[in-house]
Amino acid sequence: MRVRRRKGAQEHLENHPNYVVLKPEDSKGQWAKVFGNNNPIHVEVGSGKGRFITGMAEKNPNINYIGIDIQMSVLSYALDKVLASQLPNIKLLWVDGSELTNYFEKGEISLLYLNFSDPWPKTRHEKRRLTYKSFLKTYEMILPEHGEIHFKTDNRGLFEYSLASFSQYGMTLKQVWLDLHASDYEQNVMTEYEEKFSNKGQVIYRVEAQF
Amino acid sequence: MRVRRRKGAQEHLENHPNYVVLKPEDSKGQWAKVFGNNNPIHVEVGSGKGRFITGMAEKNPNINYIGIDIQMSVLSYALDKVLASQLPNIKLLWVDGSELTNYFEKGEISLLYLNFSDPWPKTRHEKRRLTYKSFLKTYEMILPEHGEIHFKTDNRGLFEYSLASFSQYGMTLKQVWLDLHASDYEQNVMTEYEEKFSNKGQVIYRVEAQF
Repeated sequence: MRVRRRKGAQEHLENHPNYVVLKPEDSKGQWAKVFGNNNPIHVEVGSGKGRFITGMAEKNPNINYIGIDIQMSVLSYALDKVLASQLPNIKLLWVDGSELTNYFEKGEISLLYLNFSDPWPKTRHEKRRLTYKSFLKTYEMILPEHGEIHFKTDNRGLFEYSLASFSQYGMTLKQVWLDLHASDYEQNVMTEYEEKFSNKGQVIYRVEAQF
Repeated sequence: MRVRRRKGAQEHLENHPNYVVLKPEDSKGQWAKVFGNNNPIHVEVGSGKGRFITGMAEKNPNINYIGIDIQMSVLSYALDKVLASQLPNIKLLWVDGSELTNYFEKGEISLLYLNFSDPWPKTRHEKRRLTYKSFLKTYEMILPEHGEIHFKTDNRGLFEYSLASFSQYGMTLKQVWLDLHASDYEQNVMTEYEEKFSNKGQVIYRVEAQF
């Protein structure tokens, strides 16, 4: 998600250390302590404006959620939502998805979400896609054995690519949805982007893939 | 594909032993002899009215094609097309896809096609779907190591099911198309059904899966 630079975004993030963990490397292996409980931790890589993660945290009080985004302004909007929700089970990290192993021990994360990731449609940008094999390797290093990635997108090319990428990495596709909103999947929490584009008639794809 | 019973279909098939192999169990391990050459053999399970296999055989004279269908009347229409084409590299079998190991040795088939297979949408009919694990096991037993299945359909439910079924069987998805006709895939040979339904705006899905 690309958004215009927001004035004062950095200050905004820095002013809320109870929600924004600014030195997450210090919490590696210590996230249960950060949250104050041993509940499972789910991470969304590329959490955008935070609607998904806030909605999930509200629906599932016994799961801890960490939203990660590399874009400061985007993350600052997510912070607005988190502040409004006042939920105790969310943290936000202003970091890069390729560096997750700096912040989490193997198995410290129970589940990983990718939602409407940047499609990077050009072949020469393949390595930037969040479902490229180097990212999968990173995710594998912080998830437990047989850990899962739950991925949704409206981008056909990215979804085609990702199904093959998961499979060729050796992951198993547990379930695939080729029109999520027409399915009987009832636990869906929409992202901002998802609502906008599905209202325009765009099909939403989803997959649960397991290492 | 369901078609009305055609009068004289069986006689029609029996009258053309050069195209219709009526006792294929006698040719197990002998298909190179049947075709008179050592070219690779590709099989279409559920060949319907034969447009795909005839089109493929015409485009690829150095590959031998075997079309299989359990429905006599359907196969008799395929025979009409084969007779009109007079191609030397096609045979038709009036047999059941679940019995392929009775007719082919391991590795005797180079590639297997499934096109617009019956979706059997009810859960209790799962075992009848041509991408159910028991069928995959049969296909594996006649394909070479790392052999491939190329599957296309317009049925969303069947395609969702099949991607997961291939993956859970341990197969690798080499490539996935979620809108074949909008893609740059140029080797496509349409089936009768495919032309009809894509003209109605139906998306065509395709996957190449490898054991």
